Amino acid sequence: MLHSLYNTSLSLLTDLYQLTMAYGYWKSGTAQKETVFNLYFRKHPFQGGFTVACGLSSAIEYLNAFSFSSDDVRYLSTLTGTDGQPLFDPAFLDYLQTLRFTGDIDAVPEGTVVFPNEPLIRVRGPILQCQLLETPLLTLINFQSLIATKAARMRLAAHDDTLLEFGLRRAQGIDGGMTASRAAYIGGCDATSNVLAGKLYGIPVRGTHAHSWVMSFDSELESFNVYADVLPNNVTLLVDTYDTIQGVRNAVEAGKKLRERGYQLSAIRLDSGDLAYLSMEARKLLDEAGFRETAIVGSNDLDEYLVTSLKEQGAKINIWGIGTKLVTAYDQPALGGVYKLAAIQNPAGQWDYKLKLSEQTIKISTPGIQQVRRYYNERGFISDMIYNEETPPAGPSTMIDPYDFTRQRRFADATTFEDLLVPVFRNGQTVYTTPDIQTVRNRVTTQLSQLHPGIKRFTNPHAYPVGLEQNLHQLRTDLILKLRQK
Amino acid sequence: MLHSLYNTSLSLLTDLYQLTMAYGYWKSGTAQKETVFNLYFRKHPFQGGFTVACGLSSAIEYLNAFSFSSDDVRYLSTLTGTDGQPLFDPAFLDYLQTLRFTGDIDAVPEGTVVFPNEPLIRVRGPILQCQLLETPLLTLINFQSLIATKAARMRLAAHDDTLLEFGLRRAQGIDGGMTASRAAYIGGCDATSNVLAGKLYGIPVRGTHAHSWVMSFDSELESFNVYADVLPNNVTLLVDTYDTIQGVRNAVEAGKKLRERGYQLSAIRLDSGDLAYLSMEARKLLDEAGFRETAIVGSNDLDEYLVTSLKEQGAKINIWGIGTKLVTAYDQPALGGVYKLAAIQNPAGQWDYKLKLSEQTIKISTPGIQQVRRYYNERGFISDMIYNEETPPAGPSTMIDPYDFTRQRRFADATTFEDLLVPVFRNGQTVYTTPDIQTVRNRVTTQLSQLHPGIKRFTNPHAYPVGLEQNLHQLRTDLILKLRQK
Repeated sequence: MLHSLYNTSLSLLTDLYQLTMAYGYWKSGTAQKETVFNLYFRKHPFQGGFTVACGLSSAIEYLNAFSFSSDDVRYLSTLTGTDGQPLFDPAFLDYLQTLRFTGDIDAVPEGTVVFPNEPLIRVRGPILQCQLLETPLLTLINFQSLIATKAARMRLAAHDDTLLEFGLRRAQGIDGGMTASRAAYIGGCDATSNVLAGKLYGIPVRGTHAHSWVMSFDSELESFNVYADVLPNNVTLLVDTYDTIQGVRNAVEAGKKLRERGYQLSAIRLDSGDLAYLSMEARKLLDEAGFRETAIVGSNDLDEYLVTSLKEQGAKINIWGIGTKLVTAYDQPALGGVYKLAAIQNPAGQWDYKLKLSEQTIKISTPGIQQVRRYYNERGFISDMIYNEETPPAGPSTMIDPYDFTRQRRFADATTFEDLLVPVFRNGQTVYTTPDIQTVRNRVTTQLSQLHPGIKRFTNPHAYPVGLEQNLHQLRTDLILKLRQK
Repeated sequence: MLHSLYNTSLSLLTDLYQLTMAYGYWKSGTAQKETVFNLYFRKHPFQGGFTVACGLSSAIEYLNAFSFSSDDVRYLSTLTGTDGQPLFDPAFLDYLQTLRFTGDIDAVPEGTVVFPNEPLIRVRGPILQCQLLETPLLTLINFQSLIATKAARMRLAAHDDTLLEFGLRRAQGIDGGMTASRAAYIGGCDATSNVLAGKLYGIPVRGTHAHSWVMSFDSELESFNVYADVLPNNVTLLVDTYDTIQGVRNAVEAGKKLRERGYQLSAIRLDSGDLAYLSMEARKLLDEAGFRETAIVGSNDLDEYLVTSLKEQGAKINIWGIGTKLVTAYDQPALGGVYKLAAIQNPAGQWDYKLKLSEQTIKISTPGIQQVRRYYNERGFISDMIYNEETPPAGPSTMIDPYDFTRQRRFADATTFEDLLVPVFRNGQTVYTTPDIQTVRNRVTTQLSQLHPGIKRFTNPHAYPVGLEQNLHQLRTDLILKLRQK
């Protein structure tokens, strides 16, 4: 995915402070210290109850290509400090050129439904390497998870209707559009208008004509007839260039001619006005003329809330076109994923656990070599427990809410469980086979089907229970108290 | 800019309907009809009073590289319609492979302040080509103009303080981040944390260390001392990992040692908590210890409103770090730019003017071969008049508000004027020299200095007057009436 798009080394796609810190570690002799960092988020986007993890396949590609070119290093050698002297020692730049990722990565597969504080990616390795990866991993995972989640919400709103993504023109740059098309498909869209995404990612593409097609002819009917003549096996007619109801009548006329030729009028599209009213009127006109199989496409700044509302109003739309609101995640255009140091190995080979304090309780991080255990019963997921792999849960463990220690839970009702993070890299080598996009998309569907409807609703969703395993909770509490006493 | 990033043909970076329409034009023998399309937006982003045009240099690169590869065409040959038959005739695909842009483009230079309904880009050429360019031009111009505008607003809020952009981790994909860094610099940021943007676009880069640096040492003071030791000419110390005020005291200690070595503590950084209170306390501690030259960097989900508020509260911050809210244009993550057909040449070589009707007055387009004339007096811009180049204003013309024809204006008070759109392509060849990024950035500064402060304010800004030249207004009115009578 990345490789097919970019022709430049992306190792400088990081914040400068990652490089100055790397230099600091190198120069102070601590570059090789073994560390563990966790990538996680603190709050679901869109005030929702779930998030879809996405972007791992890009991260794998990034890591496999991770190396500084001579050109990268030449650029770094030009950077200077406040005194006009070079920032970096040339020996460090030589070292950078030999640097490869040599660590371990465990991650939640793409398409998994995840919750706040759960590591989506866990990176273990020399601190210098782990630090450099912070920015690119966040860039790749934050955005893709955000869009996959938005698409999954649209899918829930649309039920079994067809969902088309056509946001490219409003996307945030070329790759903003490409990445959005891929994540939107994974999250639940059926097709995209983005032809390059179709070609590179194997996503179905859809599209017929715009207002300009109609305007380029002397009459709307003529434009419909010519279109149906030329592309008889792909006829969706956009009916709102001038007067929508008249547009539907013209579409019916063109549809009749098309039928005489042995083809079908696939759909009409409404792109403005009162979509509830117009779709009901259009449905009547189509049905009366015998076009019961002709679908109605609705579009115009739609999101999950508008789709829900239109359905409630009885709109006769079977295909939803969604663009801007999806590809920019309009109502919350960023997922606040973070990447936090959780442990450092001391010279004796033991882990020193690490935690970032904050006056805001939600911003205090969690230490440990974290894994997530998901418990199931016969109806689906019942709760997730974050534990430290150094102190795994023994038998029926208790989990504790990190923000309210009086909320505790044992798993008497669980029939089975699964650990969510799977090995992806070992000693810098990929040990994971990236599933194809269809498999990832199916995973989203399956995962969502295991979630209680209350967690999936848009308004005040029920909070899925996630807690810390009791030993990890104790470790975290001890560390907080120790740091606060300093 | 594009070339340096991508290694794939981007000609399929378009909506499928552009290709199906292109096929329709080709097959119906109208592909060569000479047309004019205008790219414009209808409303300023962020409820603001101005927009900064950005993205033209990317558009030029895109156009210069525009051609369908054999690989692109092979992919298109696999697309099928409802009957399972290929969508496109192989002869059309052969034709696509020979296609190059042969038309004319006029555009507003990057960094120009622009207003609703003004064409930012005007494309003239065979309808098939113009149509294919709609999506990529919108993708490139919409996002870059949005971010440059957001950055310009941040610049207005920050006055003469330093503005650092460090949004990469929350950006919308890799190129979302790269493009945002460039547009943010053009709009008024002084530097970016994005090292790849520094390398590829020549933007100054800045950055020192993160919380993880502090956490990787046994004590905060030790971490500061090591950092100052290793990078003495780039010392900004992040003081809020544990307790912010103690962090400032530790920074002062580290700063004293640094001073003994002949270096200066450049800055401290506050990334959480009450930035107003903490910056004032930190300033006192720094000043008392003789660090009057040490700057204070403030960051934490800042935008133009928070910066304004913090300044009003007397915050002692001289360097503002802005990330998420800037690179995603958080409060309005899309600019609604559109691309509308405005004229088609008839066989007699005359223009048939075109217009898209809508029930929403603001969505009715304007016909014509549009140019924008900006009038000045000695204080700056006074108003812009959109005119049809076929009926240029003769002498002192009258302009008319397209949404209220009783609002009219003559230019008795104008001392001079300038036409904003300049030739960029002629017969498919570039006739424009793209200015360097510094020149574009300076243009934004100069342009904004010519705008009345009332237009630049964030709350209920004054609307800068933009009207249609009287002949163009008449043409538009006649067309609307004619279409409504149909």
